[in-house]
Amino acid sequence: MSPNRRPPAPTGNLLYAQSGGVTAVINATAAGVIEAARGQGVKVYAARNGILGALREELIDTSKESAAAISALRHTPGGAFGSCRYKLKSLEDNRAEYARLIDVFSAHDIRWFLYNGGNDSADTALKISQLGEAMGYDIRCIGVPKTVDNDLAVTDCCPGFGSVAKYTAISTLEASLDVASMAETSTKVFILEVMGRHAGWIAAAAGLAGEGEDEPPHIILFPENTFDEAAFLAKVKATVERVGWCTVVASEGVRNAAGQFLAEAGTRDAFGHAQLGGVAPVLAALVKEKLGYKYHWALPDYLQRSARNMASKTDANQAYAVGKAAVEYALAGMNAVMPVITRTSDAPYRWKIEPAALDQIANREKKMPADFLTLDGFGITAAARRYLAPLIQGEAHPPHGRNGLPKYGRLKNTAVAKKLPAFKH
Amino acid sequence: MSPNRRPPAPTGNLLYAQSGGVTAVINATAAGVIEAARGQGVKVYAARNGILGALREELIDTSKESAAAISALRHTPGGAFGSCRYKLKSLEDNRAEYARLIDVFSAHDIRWFLYNGGNDSADTALKISQLGEAMGYDIRCIGVPKTVDNDLAVTDCCPGFGSVAKYTAISTLEASLDVASMAETSTKVFILEVMGRHAGWIAAAAGLAGEGEDEPPHIILFPENTFDEAAFLAKVKATVERVGWCTVVASEGVRNAAGQFLAEAGTRDAFGHAQLGGVAPVLAALVKEKLGYKYHWALPDYLQRSARNMASKTDANQAYAVGKAAVEYALAGMNAVMPVITRTSDAPYRWKIEPAALDQIANREKKMPADFLTLDGFGITAAARRYLAPLIQGEAHPPHGRNGLPKYGRLKNTAVAKKLPAFKH
Repeated sequence: MSPNRRPPAPTGNLLYAQSGGVTAVINATAAGVIEAARGQGVKVYAARNGILGALREELIDTSKESAAAISALRHTPGGAFGSCRYKLKSLEDNRAEYARLIDVFSAHDIRWFLYNGGNDSADTALKISQLGEAMGYDIRCIGVPKTVDNDLAVTDCCPGFGSVAKYTAISTLEASLDVASMAETSTKVFILEVMGRHAGWIAAAAGLAGEGEDEPPHIILFPENTFDEAAFLAKVKATVERVGWCTVVASEGVRNAAGQFLAEAGTRDAFGHAQLGGVAPVLAALVKEKLGYKYHWALPDYLQRSARNMASKTDANQAYAVGKAAVEYALAGMNAVMPVITRTSDAPYRWKIEPAALDQIANREKKMPADFLTLDGFGITAAARRYLAPLIQGEAHPPHGRNGLPKYGRLKNTAVAKKLPAFKH
Repeated sequence: MSPNRRPPAPTGNLLYAQSGGVTAVINATAAGVIEAARGQGVKVYAARNGILGALREELIDTSKESAAAISALRHTPGGAFGSCRYKLKSLEDNRAEYARLIDVFSAHDIRWFLYNGGNDSADTALKISQLGEAMGYDIRCIGVPKTVDNDLAVTDCCPGFGSVAKYTAISTLEASLDVASMAETSTKVFILEVMGRHAGWIAAAAGLAGEGEDEPPHIILFPENTFDEAAFLAKVKATVERVGWCTVVASEGVRNAAGQFLAEAGTRDAFGHAQLGGVAPVLAALVKEKLGYKYHWALPDYLQRSARNMASKTDANQAYAVGKAAVEYALAGMNAVMPVITRTSDAPYRWKIEPAALDQIANREKKMPADFLTLDGFGITAAARRYLAPLIQGEAHPPHGRNGLPKYGRLKNTAVAKKLPAFKH
């Protein structure tokens, strides 16, 4: 379905929901949505915990929040209304859920639904956009992009990615300064594990920390490549011998030749279960066993996607812009589209927001281009740098209180009175 | 030995060395040293890789660096001249090493030695301060405090600690916002592992992220307490049932009733070795096994002590101040002292720098006061907050380049020509 213009609905409310893993800037998108809608006199409800809130009729009335509280969302990480991992089945497989959504939308006069998430959420948004024709309810649905994984199709980049990319590049740089100064008598190999189960976008961003083979990161391990133990160990050894130390950035999704995640291929937890989320300790043990080097490893986990204190200004601005555009598209009567980021220039970096059809985005996955990885598979190319560098540009430090902590916003999240019986989903 | 005033040496050079684990602000101390010495017309040499550089006659001439390069040290993490873990034996046990130091000092007319480190380094500094009497060489030695562990005696706090404290509090806050928004369908228990093998200062600082039992961190595990599995699991369960999720901050040094580090008590790496540096995965496995909750854990490792981009301004200022004071003490003819931080007021926070005798500091360890921990052992008291809160106050963001990365300094580190034969240590 291509962008589909209908006459704007004259009245009604707008429902906004956050979906999937949150980011440092998803609330900036919420701010963009709410501020744009307020400017048009449209009331915004938010679903508590994503689509679950819509199914459960757990709605939040954002009109109860002050302008200052909404503005603070621009610099507050996490999902202000709660998010969830829940994928709607197809209309054929679970018609009852769609009927329930229509009931909730109808009960609260919801005529616009904005769903803020990744691939799965784009699919959900597409299904809901089709409810108008399928079930006779007049609803316009707009997908709003968000994912640290940067794997949405069509859009040049995904809000949320630029900030985790910046976190990863800065962390790689800072930890490497530490390792470099201690390497003579202490740690020689440092391993930073980053998110990215299927695509190495975040790992690639670590490459921005340095240039040239002597600068960190010396080795990046991507899920796109099969882990080659011999080549890895040879490069670690050569780097330590030449530079004195070695920084490795490993994507959590690195797999061995058998297709197993390295993180699951070795380590057992205290109960004998395969231990998840730890490719770094597996690599560290390998380095110690085969090369004898002292190692340290870090696994920042959620810290990398929630570190709003070191967010990319570019990313924060784009996150706000897609929220604002989504409202504009909705109120203009568009349906089944997503505001995407189109790059018009690398240097100076320029971008604009445009609508793209949801059916070109749902259930697709943007892979990292093959020419982003160096021939040996352990680094990023100039093409990758051209793409990645603008996304981490600019600082957007949150205001801090006198207590030394960022002043993150907290909403009242006032519930909208329920009008329907409970729904068993 | 108490502070010992002698007439200032009329000529000579000053040697500065960094020792032990580095911090986000140890280079601010270096800047304080070099700028203060330059102001007095005294040349500063730096030892490459700490005391090893002094033994090996690997000296760096800091007069080859521009004023801008030295100033940039104020916002650059890591150890600019290299650091090391190397403890001098006693004069009786290894007279040759001391004789070598005298040879190097003498060859380069070094009359002041400033050693920037923790407990062990204070001990080394004390020994060197005694060389004047023991071996007839006129040298004044000043210890300069530095350690993220905050365990130096006499000083109210240690440069380096305030920044890791701030990192820990902010990370706890940010990751908790993430967990809170996803808890309905995803992670219910998040565990952040922090440094602190023998004392829980860093873990305690996480407590600044929130107040009241519903705010994170809900549980802090200190090395000061024996791990009580039943009490821990009961509190995790009660917290998840009441709040919906639970943030745990665990010191790497948590031990079980048998005195073993929890990190070593269970997990084996891919080669069957006990895996170090991972109390978080052990706790996570326990939570999963006994309570069934979905978990995530993070282990920031070096990131916590190198995150200069989110340093405490208070800490950065104190780090500079102790460096400056150390030079003033040295040039005033003092010996065997350390500039320490004395707190004169909690609120508003006020502090000053004073000299303290090294023999009151060397080989001692400041424990966390018992009244800093709550009765159940899982939190911090108002007394702890009064102490900790000022240390994370103020931001000291480094300048960033147009590439989105902090502009960290890089020195030329020009070697001083050697004058002596090599030394086998």
